[in-house]
Amino acid sequence: VHLAARELLAQRDLAEVTVAAVAERSGVHPTSIYRRWGTLNELLLDVVLETTAEAVPTLDTGSLRGDLARYLLDSMRSLDTSIGVAAARILLFLPATEEGRRSRREYWTRRAAALQPIFDRAVGRGERVPDTEDAVETLLAPLYFRRFVTGRDITEQLVSSLVDRALPD
Amino acid sequence: VHLAARELLAQRDLAEVTVAAVAERSGVHPTSIYRRWGTLNELLLDVVLETTAEAVPTLDTGSLRGDLARYLLDSMRSLDTSIGVAAARILLFLPATEEGRRSRREYWTRRAAALQPIFDRAVGRGERVPDTEDAVETLLAPLYFRRFVTGRDITEQLVSSLVDRALPD
Repeated sequence: VHLAARELLAQRDLAEVTVAAVAERSGVHPTSIYRRWGTLNELLLDVVLETTAEAVPTLDTGSLRGDLARYLLDSMRSLDTSIGVAAARILLFLPATEEGRRSRREYWTRRAAALQPIFDRAVGRGERVPDTEDAVETLLAPLYFRRFVTGRDITEQLVSSLVDRALPD
Repeated sequence: VHLAARELLAQRDLAEVTVAAVAERSGVHPTSIYRRWGTLNELLLDVVLETTAEAVPTLDTGSLRGDLARYLLDSMRSLDTSIGVAAARILLFLPATEEGRRSRREYWTRRAAALQPIFDRAVGRGERVPDTEDAVETLLAPLYFRRFVTGRDITEQLVSSLVDRALPD
């Protein structure tokens, strides 16, 4: 089911990625998909998290600063893939209901949790670390804003200053 | 044409707001609309800029800090209106082409220019001012990110720290 959804996200318009299409491609009955994931959005966000974890690994560069800079560069690249663009669109189009808000929160709690190894290593080295969710926001908000909203250039200087800002004083 | 487009944006799904629908509602021929604005997106962004200028006035509170905090609170409120949501969706769905990027850049150059009175007043009072586009990004990126991406709470403390961050050291 994951593989089918991922292929569809990569190849089709988001509007064409339906539970029926995923069911047909994977050979799994739609009822089973609904039983396991609840809604199409939950399934797609689950697939996006898995893909992002592969595209944005938390490699050990030897310092918190280096790890975060690397994470940011990988995140930036993933924003230009079809899965990255699909993720942004799914999040934006979640309904403005309590359920939509819960899906957003859950997605970002898991995105932040995927970053935890970077912070755990830093603590092990005796470095001071910021709050994980605050750091994710400081690092990623301006990137998303430039990529999807303002269209301003994403420069190395921006990446460097975002990492500085995310580190504790 | 502006009024017709604004009413359609407020009342219909974005997909239903077409040049044909705007033409019908305003009584202006589609050809004239295309001649004046070039594309549907250009027309809609123009309408959004006008609406935002009204919803987010640049009132004089007596200090740069006060003016920016007020601007941020008004911007936050406008993100929850149908026009605010439509603006975010139009920007996100601009094609990843040179033309789409140009539309984004032009839209944000004009959004930033609308903030200029705040900075001009501050200069007049002898206050130091940041670069306008950098300030807009520092102020708005985390708000957009929370509202449309992570779903985290937008708190007064966040607003206050964003204003601090946007001011020169």
